[in-house]
Amino acid sequence: MARHNTVDDLVGRAREGEPRAVARLISMVEDASPRLREVAAALASHTGRAQVVGLTGSPGVGKSTTTSVLVSALRKQGKRVGVLAVDPSSPFSGGALLGDRVRMQDHATDSGVFIRSMATRGHLGGLSWATPQALRVLDAAGCDVVLVETVGVGQSEIEVVSLADTTLVLLAPGMGDGIQAAKAGILEVADIFVVNKADRDGASQTVRDLRYMLSLGERGAKGDSSWKAPIIKTVAARGEGIEDVTDALDEHRDWMNRSGERDRRRQLRAEAEIEAITLEQVRARIGDIRGQSTLPELAKRVVAGELDPYTAADDLVDTVSAS
Amino acid sequence: MARHNTVDDLVGRAREGEPRAVARLISMVEDASPRLREVAAALASHTGRAQVVGLTGSPGVGKSTTTSVLVSALRKQGKRVGVLAVDPSSPFSGGALLGDRVRMQDHATDSGVFIRSMATRGHLGGLSWATPQALRVLDAAGCDVVLVETVGVGQSEIEVVSLADTTLVLLAPGMGDGIQAAKAGILEVADIFVVNKADRDGASQTVRDLRYMLSLGERGAKGDSSWKAPIIKTVAARGEGIEDVTDALDEHRDWMNRSGERDRRRQLRAEAEIEAITLEQVRARIGDIRGQSTLPELAKRVVAGELDPYTAADDLVDTVSAS
Repeated sequence: MARHNTVDDLVGRAREGEPRAVARLISMVEDASPRLREVAAALASHTGRAQVVGLTGSPGVGKSTTTSVLVSALRKQGKRVGVLAVDPSSPFSGGALLGDRVRMQDHATDSGVFIRSMATRGHLGGLSWATPQALRVLDAAGCDVVLVETVGVGQSEIEVVSLADTTLVLLAPGMGDGIQAAKAGILEVADIFVVNKADRDGASQTVRDLRYMLSLGERGAKGDSSWKAPIIKTVAARGEGIEDVTDALDEHRDWMNRSGERDRRRQLRAEAEIEAITLEQVRARIGDIRGQSTLPELAKRVVAGELDPYTAADDLVDTVSAS
Repeated sequence: MARHNTVDDLVGRAREGEPRAVARLISMVEDASPRLREVAAALASHTGRAQVVGLTGSPGVGKSTTTSVLVSALRKQGKRVGVLAVDPSSPFSGGALLGDRVRMQDHATDSGVFIRSMATRGHLGGLSWATPQALRVLDAAGCDVVLVETVGVGQSEIEVVSLADTTLVLLAPGMGDGIQAAKAGILEVADIFVVNKADRDGASQTVRDLRYMLSLGERGAKGDSSWKAPIIKTVAARGEGIEDVTDALDEHRDWMNRSGERDRRRQLRAEAEIEAITLEQVRARIGDIRGQSTLPELAKRVVAGELDPYTAADDLVDTVSAS
């Protein structure tokens, strides 16, 4: 392998903002390349600078458009921006409206923007396990802000929150989104609410509904947070209200730093990440064992009613630990 | 503890169809009672008889109504029926339309029907980890058919398939469900399609769309299965077409037995179950370790950039294996 392709060299070039080196590193992370660990080790000391912004909402609220205009706004401030799209309906990750796809082309030639779609392998709708590592690549590459866009139907919102410094929840008028958000437990985790398509009928009602539901939540809440999630109206397609969003992102970042919440979240995020990798390693060992006959044999005995699955799992844990 | 509350005694009474014993055992399973392992061991030799039928579909397709009339139809055949509702929008599991709830009351006094809603802890929208064990309880209690009802938005369909002998996918006209189903990868896994609300405009179109998409799938498919998923039209609210559904359930059961597919699925199901319990045990050990300082300390070093998460996970795997 040529010297200029060593992991250290790739990381060096990524830190200088070379798009191909960034893309290459993310691919290595995504494909679980044998050099994944080497990449992770080389990135470790260069991360922690970027503000990670989770952006979630149901299909149709205008997530892609908002992401796109948000990228433009952040670029105007001279910020380097990364986008990780984990949303299967996002133009970044493939299944797209042509209009949005074309709109994103604006950023394709901008060297201050890295855009990457993440495969949602395994987890349908969930965040790819590679997302945290891809985040680290963009962070090390000097991104000031990394937007993680994910579709808002359940589990993925909760996962995006476990990754983000700032979570932005998008809603639109007349979609019953407030109720859906309440059901999914997303109200409690949003740092900023954006009611998009605010020029439509019902926008004010959506804001009122949201305020009411938030007030209900506050009564029963822990209540010691000094951050009160703002509700911002936007018309992303016309760029209206986007400055309010970037202002809110700045305010939240400053509050996170002041309050110690940033460190607390990052600690929890690292714990969750280590735990996930640990479980993945155990799963891989089980996979190795699958190649052998242990698991199929145990399963056979469970099917035959000779063994219960818990006793079988005990056997498997022993085998995994010994391997 | 009185003799009549021992696990063996509870299992004995459940096998005689005593509802309170069945309910008690499912609670023990759901609450991860310390006696969970004892329950699992006592059930092992009494399971494997029931036909496990997964029933899934988007909200609004009439899943609850279909389940209810299906229960009635199976009862008329003299079959003992269990229902596990993992759907948060199901009347069985709480958030309900009053009409459906009232309709299900018909079964409340029928000793040949066991109905249980499962909490979807952890997994939003996903199948509860306790579901496989609850299935075993109903199986041991002599249910001929166990219906597992789950909401159809993504991951949960795939999970229901990993549990079921027969997977029934419900659609309704004009909901774009065909496309959604194709997206979610549910077309490939359905054993029986039910187009409910077939008296509505667009029902025939939905059937045609479905046929077309299935034909696309067949071209690229493995193609060696001799089972071709039927498409059945129903109007569940009036009981129309339900006999066609029970006939299809019988046919599929017979085909599963003849073809060896039943054994193959149960083997895979047991493997997945053992693997899930194994991972859960590892997770629990990590939880124990969380109480100590290992994980937080490792996470702190990852946040500080002194350590990468993979090396940290190596440390944790060692700690877990040694514990």
